[in-house]
Amino acid sequence: MTQQATLNPVRPQAERLRKLRHEVWQANLDLQRHNLVTFTWGNVSAIDRESGLVVIKPSGVAYEDLSADNMVVVNLAGDIVEGELNPSSDTATHLVLYRTYAHIGGVVHTHSPHATAWAQAGKAIPALGTTHADYFYGSIPCTRALSNAEIASDYELNTGLVMVETLADQDPMATPGMIVKEHGPFSWGKDAHQAVHNAVVMEVVASMALQTLQINPAVEYINQALLDKHYLRKHGANAYYGQADSHKK
Amino acid sequence: MTQQATLNPVRPQAERLRKLRHEVWQANLDLQRHNLVTFTWGNVSAIDRESGLVVIKPSGVAYEDLSADNMVVVNLAGDIVEGELNPSSDTATHLVLYRTYAHIGGVVHTHSPHATAWAQAGKAIPALGTTHADYFYGSIPCTRALSNAEIASDYELNTGLVMVETLADQDPMATPGMIVKEHGPFSWGKDAHQAVHNAVVMEVVASMALQTLQINPAVEYINQALLDKHYLRKHGANAYYGQADSHKK
Amino acid sequence: MTQQATLNPVRPQAERLRKLRHEVWQANLDLQRHNLVTFTWGNVSAIDRESGLVVIKPSGVAYEDLSADNMVVVNLAGDIVEGELNPSSDTATHLVLYRTYAHIGGVVHTHSPHATAWAQAGKAIPALGTTHADYFYGSIPCTRALSNAEIASDYELNTGLVMVETLADQDPMATPGMIVKEHGPFSWGKDAHQAVHNAVVMEVVASMALQTLQINPAVEYINQALLDKHYLRKHGANAYYGQADSHKK
Amino acid sequence: MTQQATLNPVRPQAERLRKLRHEVWQANLDLQRHNLVTFTWGNVSAIDRESGLVVIKPSGVAYEDLSADNMVVVNLAGDIVEGELNPSSDTATHLVLYRTYAHIGGVVHTHSPHATAWAQAGKAIPALGTTHADYFYGSIPCTRALSNAEIASDYELNTGLVMVETLADQDPMATPGMIVKEHGPFSWGKDAHQAVHNAVVMEVVASMALQTLQINPAVEYINQALLDKHYLRKHGANAYYGQADSHKK
Repeated sequence: MTQQATLNPVRPQAERLRKLRHEVWQANLDLQRHNLVTFTWGNVSAIDRESGLVVIKPSGVAYEDLSADNMVVVNLAGDIVEGELNPSSDTATHLVLYRTYAHIGGVVHTHSPHATAWAQAGKAIPALGTTHADYFYGSIPCTRALSNAEIASDYELNTGLVMVETLADQDPMATPGMIVKEHGPFSWGKDAHQAVHNAVVMEVVASMALQTLQINPAVEYINQALLDKHYLRKHGANAYYGQADSHKK
Repeated sequence: MTQQATLNPVRPQAERLRKLRHEVWQANLDLQRHNLVTFTWGNVSAIDRESGLVVIKPSGVAYEDLSADNMVVVNLAGDIVEGELNPSSDTATHLVLYRTYAHIGGVVHTHSPHATAWAQAGKAIPALGTTHADYFYGSIPCTRALSNAEIASDYELNTGLVMVETLADQDPMATPGMIVKEHGPFSWGKDAHQAVHNAVVMEVVASMALQTLQINPAVEYINQALLDKHYLRKHGANAYYGQADSHKK
Repeated sequence: MTQQATLNPVRPQAERLRKLRHEVWQANLDLQRHNLVTFTWGNVSAIDRESGLVVIKPSGVAYEDLSADNMVVVNLAGDIVEGELNPSSDTATHLVLYRTYAHIGGVVHTHSPHATAWAQAGKAIPALGTTHADYFYGSIPCTRALSNAEIASDYELNTGLVMVETLADQDPMATPGMIVKEHGPFSWGKDAHQAVHNAVVMEVVASMALQTLQINPAVEYINQALLDKHYLRKHGANAYYGQADSHKK
Repeated sequence: MTQQATLNPVRPQAERLRKLRHEVWQANLDLQRHNLVTFTWGNVSAIDRESGLVVIKPSGVAYEDLSADNMVVVNLAGDIVEGELNPSSDTATHLVLYRTYAHIGGVVHTHSPHATAWAQAGKAIPALGTTHADYFYGSIPCTRALSNAEIASDYELNTGLVMVETLADQDPMATPGMIVKEHGPFSWGKDAHQAVHNAVVMEVVASMALQTLQINPAVEYINQALLDKHYLRKHGANAYYGQADSHKK
């Protein structure tokens, strides 16, 4: 028995995908439960790294009509492998993130209103307090605007590429989300559940950041030592928040 | 059998109206479900183009007392054809829109708070992001104020006429809503359901637009290429959002 | 049989009070249903004009512990006539309004957040649109601050008196609410139900007015002709909103 | 039988702790019921003064997984006395408050958004109206920022110490809450229930205060006489709000 098998017992791909379909379906419903979406304005995907297959919400289908069965399975090139519906129109954006960052297991896109307001304003969401620092190790970046050429051709692909360009050499797991200028937030995590979690965090800190600036327009970024303290209290080898044997964060 | 009959089998008018009463009743309830109304501050209508009859909410009746049966049916001249209650006091405004624009199948009026704030401010809701561009092909216009003479006589009729004046040569289906100065939002669509959908969109983008300006007072209108991209991704011959065989948008 | 008996058949006082207790209890619960109160921060009363007895919420009792039976009955001098609990600490304020204005049948006080913000700011809520004009025939006044002497002695009485001073010769039924500086909103109407209705309106228009000013700080008061039109569409001899035989507004 | 036994009959410690576990569990759930928490971002504790034992929420456990049984019991030195889970990572902060102030029976920490915005802005929440004055006898203070040394070592302890430093010689029961700069609100009271109550008050008055400043940037602090009147109407020997025999406030 190999070491990998010990960590992650080999299961048939069909069984893994069945489980992943269920997780992605539930994570899509969680967007509603957390009040992040109006109508169908949000989508969640997750990847099975062994097969390189991605499960994603179908395009434009109401949340109440979603099921584990009508999730769409695509490969990393974007070809539909399973499913009779069109995948989310944002699929190509999700795939860029999976192809570029090996540790990303789930991706979320929404138009949650406060984070979207920052995207429309074209401003990074500044790290102003420990709520932010518990999840994002620095400001939540905002991409540059896409060029007309990038919009005209392969728009969704380019939306992913401009996020990669913006992250540059930052660790995507320490900056698990970003806002795309004039568009809205994307977030990610080790799985679909954590990606949704980070989408919620972005919406909350976006709302708080605007209020903070309204109370004190001269506010400064959080003290770096406090940012370090809170981020590292929850992440990495010396984390001490939560229970050792439970889902961290 | 004529071609039209194939596309839209001739059904007795009574049957069509029964169906339309049900749709309009449900669409009125949807205003509540989407948190667009306080008390009775909203109304939905829809038209049966074959007969030219319009089904509309009765005036000042609580949403919980509405039923398909107490919806009021009026003709395009505003005469009550069926129903024992007074139609919405805004009926004359709805009728102007139906008489002027042949493609409008449903009309909504609310006092949803964010869109109404823009109306009170007398400012068009600027197109600042893709959420807006997915539904409105440009800013959401605000009418001029009515003159005292327009208020004194045929006020509700004139409210409709000033919207027609404001739309001018724009396609009403690409600008499926507007705010009336010092009053509030009206929206429309191919049917009552879509008109309610657009009322929700107006409220959401109105809220986002204010926040966007608070974050960045110098924000510019969305790049025209991005506006085109998003609007046309969902509308027209080359739309690719959603499922080919399902309700687009 | 006298004319009065025809309009309002003589019923035993006990029966009238039983009905009024039920109405006031339900109206207090409506404050919660309309999200106007946190904890016990609100109270509703109503008067039986024939006997001059006022039914009011007991002080500091949680809404879930209220019942028709534990409502307190006081006379216009403030003496407890029925009930074992203390009446609302704001009782003296309610009584001033009943003693001064013969047409007021119900009074409400809340700390609803948007209206309270205007009270804290010490500014009248300006009439900026038709939502406001449908209920208030002009701005919603804000009282002057109480003097230290007025606070030190008979504070609740003086809170009522400063509202009467502020209304001056305005018709209280056309200005069915007011904000007390540094405190919060009071509203009234022909009965408890309508007083609650007006409390909701004040909260909604307070929220809209702030947003309106944020969008356009130079906004002007609503055109007087439009204010007249909307107020008179719903009130007075020529009102045509709603159903002739139903509860107007 | 001693006088103390009459007032507080001696009960076995186990029984008292069982009751306290239940209270703390319910108070933690109340944070959710009052919309003060996202995910696990809040915690409540309470102390049994006879034994000096503190019951507190376990760290990072979802509210729906909490029970009276999985609450953690620690002594005032922070040693776990009962329970298999780690106590809240903020335990050391709670303990400073219990050790310093003999009248505090319950402590709450949340990241409720409006109060947190004031913390991020680094500004005390000013006393602007009677809603505030009913609970806080003056502004709600904001601590100074922690130094890098205070963050680096014994961070949670130092978070408590900076609150004690900020309160200085003020009565903690008249200032039953505070915001920690760049972090968020802490509140307290005679028991867990009252500490939660004060957390709700802080969130409400934080929201109102921002709106008040937006309406009137030149607003002044509440008149001292009115502050006195409202605070003392609810607190102290001459309080007359509520029912003599019921839970005050």
